[in-house]
Amino acid sequence: MSKARPYRLRAAIEALPATVPFVGPEAQERASGKRFMARIGANECVFGPSPKAVAAMAAAEAELWKYADPEGHELRHALARHHGVQAGNIVLGGGIDGLLGIVARLFVEAGVAVVTSNGAYPTFNFHIAGNGGALHKIPYREDREDIAALLDAAGRTRARILYLANPDNPMGTWWPAADVARAIETLPDDCLLLLDEAYGDFAPEATAPPIDAGDPRVLRFRTFSKAYGMAGARVGYCIGEKGLIAQFEKIRDHYGMNRTAEIGAMAALADQDWLRATVEKTAAARKRIAEIAKANGLAPIPSATNFVTIDCGRDSAYAKAVLAGVLDRGVFIRMPGVEPLSRCIRVSAGQPADLDAFATALADTLRALG
Amino acid sequence: MSKARPYRLRAAIEALPATVPFVGPEAQERASGKRFMARIGANECVFGPSPKAVAAMAAAEAELWKYADPEGHELRHALARHHGVQAGNIVLGGGIDGLLGIVARLFVEAGVAVVTSNGAYPTFNFHIAGNGGALHKIPYREDREDIAALLDAAGRTRARILYLANPDNPMGTWWPAADVARAIETLPDDCLLLLDEAYGDFAPEATAPPIDAGDPRVLRFRTFSKAYGMAGARVGYCIGEKGLIAQFEKIRDHYGMNRTAEIGAMAALADQDWLRATVEKTAAARKRIAEIAKANGLAPIPSATNFVTIDCGRDSAYAKAVLAGVLDRGVFIRMPGVEPLSRCIRVSAGQPADLDAFATALADTLRALG
Repeated sequence: MSKARPYRLRAAIEALPATVPFVGPEAQERASGKRFMARIGANECVFGPSPKAVAAMAAAEAELWKYADPEGHELRHALARHHGVQAGNIVLGGGIDGLLGIVARLFVEAGVAVVTSNGAYPTFNFHIAGNGGALHKIPYREDREDIAALLDAAGRTRARILYLANPDNPMGTWWPAADVARAIETLPDDCLLLLDEAYGDFAPEATAPPIDAGDPRVLRFRTFSKAYGMAGARVGYCIGEKGLIAQFEKIRDHYGMNRTAEIGAMAALADQDWLRATVEKTAAARKRIAEIAKANGLAPIPSATNFVTIDCGRDSAYAKAVLAGVLDRGVFIRMPGVEPLSRCIRVSAGQPADLDAFATALADTLRALG
Repeated sequence: MSKARPYRLRAAIEALPATVPFVGPEAQERASGKRFMARIGANECVFGPSPKAVAAMAAAEAELWKYADPEGHELRHALARHHGVQAGNIVLGGGIDGLLGIVARLFVEAGVAVVTSNGAYPTFNFHIAGNGGALHKIPYREDREDIAALLDAAGRTRARILYLANPDNPMGTWWPAADVARAIETLPDDCLLLLDEAYGDFAPEATAPPIDAGDPRVLRFRTFSKAYGMAGARVGYCIGEKGLIAQFEKIRDHYGMNRTAEIGAMAALADQDWLRATVEKTAAARKRIAEIAKANGLAPIPSATNFVTIDCGRDSAYAKAVLAGVLDRGVFIRMPGVEPLSRCIRVSAGQPADLDAFATALADTLRALG
């Protein structure tokens, strides 16, 4: 080894901080030396994948020596039928995270303006920063992403991309479909809307505007990670106008999808009964989390997702103390990272026993905090 | 829809061709309307994953609602023990393809010189082109990657990256460890060697130089896709100096790994008996492919991989005709894409029945070609 630093990174990479969007629960368990008794912090779906998906995947493992079809033909066609679009309107990716990474590479380079909400999905910011984009972060308004202000900022900054999650993470709030449709119609020229609908399956009927697969002004992001209960599979997809979707082919990792996961996604998609049951169980869990919050004098924020964000009623330092207390009592939850959202904690839907554990941990924590 | 093209791609993306590194066998089956009777074209491992890995994955599918540990702690530590390095020397990725994509983003931008062999791994070229790099392609010499010429070109072009696969794909040839070690010692200043050892498990004992995890001049790429029989899982890893490996954290998709696949990889790694048996079955298959080639008057090239590249003895057009004839007879194989390598066809190790089918298809094809 003759030289201290015998390689030349891109200058933009040298300048990037070594941030990680989220620390995982496993790392927290390793640090504390204790296993969590409830895992309700990462908006995973504790109700699990459809048993039919589990069976299909288990049956497929012996064939894992085969690469997945790089065109994802069967799953894309099944999704196209499901959404009433064509297969050419759909691209598969390694979850929405992976797809956002590709979009960032397609559109963003040094100096490109991108608009999002301040405190919205950190992984989106991670990918934009990783490509040198200039992020403009617009404050939430009454705990919702502020569509009017986002549109205004996109026009003012000549943004190439506007990110909107509906329903939103980390607040769980949402806009009715009509408002989102109006936002699409009033987008500034040449600004693409990334509409992250990861939590859309949990939302009331008229939350997602109808899909217009011929409209090149918007990309819709969906996933098997949330309501389909397959976060660990890494199967997401993006719906959009064909010419725009075709751009993904230029840079995506064509052999990047797990073959078994695609087979599982096919089976999960076919089992809409399981999906409905999951959505019902999730709604019941949301109700219970809200009751626990209120019983402890805290204010749950109405949610259209699989989590409930709870206003702890004081500042970030207090919410952090609540979070720490709940974690310390063996219940994995999270909290928003940015003020004023960070006056809250965020609790994912859980099994009844998970929520019992949360109820106890929260009450004990608040008592200890005085 | 008010505008024809209401988004602004990066200019470099606009200019990229919509090439795909490889068309999959499934697409060929859809085009022909016939299923292949033997799938021995993509260097997949027909002998499959360890049954212990299959069982571990099947048992894990019900837990797929969990994201994988973003730090990949258990698998990285198991790999570190296996290779006698530390976990900080290892980064996991979605196969070597996915890792090469990250390396391209770390090092390559418009105008950066990169050196590879002409006809070597197309997916590497795809990632370099996708980041605007200037590829310098050095001819093979006697069907091997020409290390001396590659080093010379790297110095001449001030390349940031030099790609070398050992053993090589698509020719199956290899260099002894001592030659690779010498190449590392004589790398031009500031040029990083990407040593793709995807096929290393099949190679003779002294093919891979010892791993010096403190040496920041080289990144070693390994995978569960080949000898471990898990191509569809998308689990590869890169071994390197800690500071260099830490750079991956800045841009990699931290939650991008399939959870079940990591569990399968752990079990596969623990079953070295199965790996040895696979390597033996592969060696027997290589021998059989070589015999089939010779029996048909063609010249197999000695291989240290899980495929045999067969010199058809004439030009590219002839090899293409042989390829087409074999495909048409229901046997999926491939051929190198660039002259003079494209005088050959490439046949992956198969089960005895797969190779019987190949023998028949090849003989019939050559007879038909006259």
